[in-house]
Amino acid sequence: MKMIDGGVTSAKGFKASSCAAGVKYKDRLDMAMVYSEKPCVAAGTFTSNVVKAAPVLWDRRIIREGTGDVRAVVVNTGIANAGTGKEGMRLCEETAETASRTLGINKDEVLIGSTGVIGPQLNMKAINGGIEMLAGSLSDGREAAHHAAEAIMTTDTHPKECAIELEIGGKVVTLGGMAKGSGMIHPNMCTMLSYIMTDADLSKELLQKALSEVVIDTFNMVSVDGDTSTNDTLIVMANGEAGNAKIASEGADYDAFKEALYKITENLARQLAGDGEGATKLVTCNIINASDKDKARVLAKSVITSSLTKAAMYGNDANWGRILCAMGYSGAQFDPEKLDIFFDAKGCERIHIYHDGETMPYSEDEATALLKHEEVIITADMKEGKAEATAWGCDLTHEYVNINADYRS
Amino acid sequence: MKMIDGGVTSAKGFKASSCAAGVKYKDRLDMAMVYSEKPCVAAGTFTSNVVKAAPVLWDRRIIREGTGDVRAVVVNTGIANAGTGKEGMRLCEETAETASRTLGINKDEVLIGSTGVIGPQLNMKAINGGIEMLAGSLSDGREAAHHAAEAIMTTDTHPKECAIELEIGGKVVTLGGMAKGSGMIHPNMCTMLSYIMTDADLSKELLQKALSEVVIDTFNMVSVDGDTSTNDTLIVMANGEAGNAKIASEGADYDAFKEALYKITENLARQLAGDGEGATKLVTCNIINASDKDKARVLAKSVITSSLTKAAMYGNDANWGRILCAMGYSGAQFDPEKLDIFFDAKGCERIHIYHDGETMPYSEDEATALLKHEEVIITADMKEGKAEATAWGCDLTHEYVNINADYRS
Repeated sequence: MKMIDGGVTSAKGFKASSCAAGVKYKDRLDMAMVYSEKPCVAAGTFTSNVVKAAPVLWDRRIIREGTGDVRAVVVNTGIANAGTGKEGMRLCEETAETASRTLGINKDEVLIGSTGVIGPQLNMKAINGGIEMLAGSLSDGREAAHHAAEAIMTTDTHPKECAIELEIGGKVVTLGGMAKGSGMIHPNMCTMLSYIMTDADLSKELLQKALSEVVIDTFNMVSVDGDTSTNDTLIVMANGEAGNAKIASEGADYDAFKEALYKITENLARQLAGDGEGATKLVTCNIINASDKDKARVLAKSVITSSLTKAAMYGNDANWGRILCAMGYSGAQFDPEKLDIFFDAKGCERIHIYHDGETMPYSEDEATALLKHEEVIITADMKEGKAEATAWGCDLTHEYVNINADYRS
Repeated sequence: MKMIDGGVTSAKGFKASSCAAGVKYKDRLDMAMVYSEKPCVAAGTFTSNVVKAAPVLWDRRIIREGTGDVRAVVVNTGIANAGTGKEGMRLCEETAETASRTLGINKDEVLIGSTGVIGPQLNMKAINGGIEMLAGSLSDGREAAHHAAEAIMTTDTHPKECAIELEIGGKVVTLGGMAKGSGMIHPNMCTMLSYIMTDADLSKELLQKALSEVVIDTFNMVSVDGDTSTNDTLIVMANGEAGNAKIASEGADYDAFKEALYKITENLARQLAGDGEGATKLVTCNIINASDKDKARVLAKSVITSSLTKAAMYGNDANWGRILCAMGYSGAQFDPEKLDIFFDAKGCERIHIYHDGETMPYSEDEATALLKHEEVIITADMKEGKAEATAWGCDLTHEYVNINADYRS
């Protein structure tokens, strides 16, 4: 199993395209398409927000109730098609109809993704024109995947892609994905928008099972700002082109596939956190030796969600009191007098900052130097058991406020 | 019942003092004392954070297990005495001992409050010297209360006080209080530090009952940054000096007292939210016509806690999608297509911005003008029942990041 350079076109049989359709932004890529010649089984996880965008409702129905044949994904940025009522649902369906007509497939084989401002209705002239351009420029090249990853960005500063190769029963199986998300990121089922394409041959049930399990410890452990989006969507499509013996039950092949899916979602999740709106660094929190896994997850996520901890990370301030405080209000029970906290960063000596109820002697200068790294790792050793969990976040910066105080203009 | 200008010395028999003890800050008031000649019954609510500061543990024991006689409160700022282990507890007790010796009272009659940085141990030379100064300068004047309210400030920009007068059985009863809190404010039992003194004569049990009830809809509905402090403390002391017939059972007198306590805690809670770290405005969210009270509280608090909503308020951006989104991820169930959202501000015409699933036509210019006011009121009409709740927060600003990226220096 190895990571490779790639994206949504890395697996056999997938093509992608992108275009500047002018949905809201001018003169930038704002629509993307991914297409599989062969029908795919698809799995998905979606936002837990009560307010669900029209494309979330559309995709969820197809994934949960459909026969399983999916062929294409169409994504637009600029407008989220959330808070848009029945008219928004109608425009989402019209988008799928246009794509189905243009690609010569069934409309229920088209998944839709939208991201951007909540409220406005889609500009269908731009959307329909965009779909024509997208269908006419599909390619299985590396560049096509890269531009598709660019086209789904909103406030992201760079595209997020990842691919992985493994062998299953002597056949090379590839998974390649892309994700976007920078603000309104606190996924509860998955992140804002992420699409992973694989040529593995496996049943829809096992694809969904693998996805639902890996998302708990990957995308669901990311937070940029505590706001769970109305549009969170994570889709995996598998077209079977790798030619492996179909994975139809759990076992070594399923485990290998699931591990690869874990790695790709973890990689994309880290990319999302590190590119949080205005972020200058990735903040990783490891909880180790906790009494159980759920508690470890709750503690890790509370630390990386704390506004005060995030602001301290921005200021390179080793203010461990805020970390301890965030663990304390997480809802998890623990003994604050039986606990160690450490800071780590690449190339730096570990700093042991808190031990069993009290501060440790440490050098503020060394701590500040460590905290200036692009990934800071906070580790809390609970000394209670063997469970562990990791969460990924970012710092809270002036630029976050800039971006969000004036997002719509 | 009427609000009056006043603070912790407004009720009969209470004196206050303040001094610059040099606990951490130099040349500013950093310690305060409140003292009652007559023994008081006392009630309190404390942080739900698992990590509790030493003075929280100290006060909680006295309030919950003590005989009920309390005479004095000693507060320091600069150092929170949290995350300080057994040594921190010992220094807290030493503080109470010094006060007891100096005032000639029992050490279990002394409540302690600390606020500031988590981690360092108290500077006892400064604390003990400060107590001498405080005990020697107690006064029942208006100025003494005001300076005490100043002395307990950390990043607050102004002191927070409030007083109220009512008649109970022909006698004038007064309640006067002060509060501090600007960051790490997301009270779960109460706010960071607040002290209310009253000359009402009532039983300790009824005082605690009234306090525990009013705090749910007042201090517990405030959030500045979602971080529940290790030090949250709300104390009410009653010395009986008003001479009213002792309130020993529920009835009209109890109801009147509880209403006054509600008003004073609501007033202080609003002051806390409006003076949130870096805040330029108070953001009030009313949920009306919800199916039940708990749901109304959850929805209101989710809106004022949302980083994205707070940043939009800072930018005077009528981005109602973020409000709807925050309601959607609150955990409360509702139909987003049966719901109205309004903006209000003093002297402005109400703006109806969202109706039953879709945006309403409105003028962006008028909305921006409304949002520039110092209090913005967001009202969501759930159209399901008769329950309502209000929460208070503030906007998320550059100054919040400034303050918290470099709090310790």
